[in-house]
Amino acid sequence: MAGSEVVLLDFWASMFSMRVKIALAEKGIEYECKEEDLGNKSSLLLEMNPIHKKVPVLIHNGKPVNESGIIVQYIDETWNEKSPLMPSDPYVRAQARFWADYVDKKVYDASKRTWTLKGEEQEKAKKEFIEILKVLEGQIGEKTYFMGESFGYADIALVTFYSWFYTFETFGNISIEKECPKLIAWAKRCMQRDSVSKTLPDSRKIYEVVMEFSRKLGL
Amino acid sequence: MAGSEVVLLDFWASMFSMRVKIALAEKGIEYECKEEDLGNKSSLLLEMNPIHKKVPVLIHNGKPVNESGIIVQYIDETWNEKSPLMPSDPYVRAQARFWADYVDKKVYDASKRTWTLKGEEQEKAKKEFIEILKVLEGQIGEKTYFMGESFGYADIALVTFYSWFYTFETFGNISIEKECPKLIAWAKRCMQRDSVSKTLPDSRKIYEVVMEFSRKLGL
Repeated sequence: MAGSEVVLLDFWASMFSMRVKIALAEKGIEYECKEEDLGNKSSLLLEMNPIHKKVPVLIHNGKPVNESGIIVQYIDETWNEKSPLMPSDPYVRAQARFWADYVDKKVYDASKRTWTLKGEEQEKAKKEFIEILKVLEGQIGEKTYFMGESFGYADIALVTFYSWFYTFETFGNISIEKECPKLIAWAKRCMQRDSVSKTLPDSRKIYEVVMEFSRKLGL
Repeated sequence: MAGSEVVLLDFWASMFSMRVKIALAEKGIEYECKEEDLGNKSSLLLEMNPIHKKVPVLIHNGKPVNESGIIVQYIDETWNEKSPLMPSDPYVRAQARFWADYVDKKVYDASKRTWTLKGEEQEKAKKEFIEILKVLEGQIGEKTYFMGESFGYADIALVTFYSWFYTFETFGNISIEKECPKLIAWAKRCMQRDSVSKTLPDSRKIYEVVMEFSRKLGL
């Protein structure tokens, strides 16, 4: 794919944008990263993702691909010479898709409730969030990565949330490591990869931004 | 895949189960269909889908695959000798996935609100539902199928809702054909395929069951 032009419409703290950056890094693809102001979205973002109007958007030779999981699969299928992100066996591939889909359906909403709710509702949200993480931890178990020895699609779907764990822990007064030690061990293994460690922003920087946002909302 | 054993855990009125049946029919795969009583789920269902406890489940040689979109992709990748359901080009494939994902994120919830809500809330729900259908109609336009000349993944994701249109129209007192004529023309083209027409149940049978369910809930 020499000479192809790759642009990412990004927001640095978005766990969904981070997924795309990890996939691009795994494949060794150079790209231009354009930071979006989500309070004042660019006309390029609105043009390239008129349906959802959200980051991330991958623009490849002028054509947009939307939705992080779909973008990661597109990257894997387009630059397919190195670092496969999807298992080669259709059954294992279906399992990787299942767990990435579980993350999409469960983790974001549950995690958000740990820092937007208060009192009893927050306690309930924290319990639900930990239960979801325990399901994921149970799936990873003693394996190196989600689907075994190879880092890939399901790992990418979940590991970007790791950069937000400090925020969830501090707002929720919980220790995810105490509840899910194997999950944290897995996240630390992922962090040994340059593609992950160079993509995930400083956890405290995310916390500060969420604190500021939370104060503005009067939470 | 001669000699492979395929079982579907099904509920006849589920638009998600219907997707799997269309994909199996397109591929010409014989399978055993086990109807589930959703009020009293079988131990097989709970064992094969312990996370979501939902139909459809495809059990292939004893191993389960869950979530309808993932099952359809699994079927396409496993029985890949005939009737490809996914576009061969990675970019077009990403678009097919995008529209199937849009259906998953938008259509089911919006459609449900047209028959579970009343009064002003129902009016709002009807408007939203029609707007979502218009977005989908805009994408199909004058094309034969969602992605062009080939029936596939995105068509399968949406067309199963067609069997529920009579219910949405009767409860909501709307005419989807009047609002979205091209969408209905596309649905009728899909219905010319045996895989679709033999899978989709009688619209009036669905309406009767929903009526009964709605009465039980006191809606």
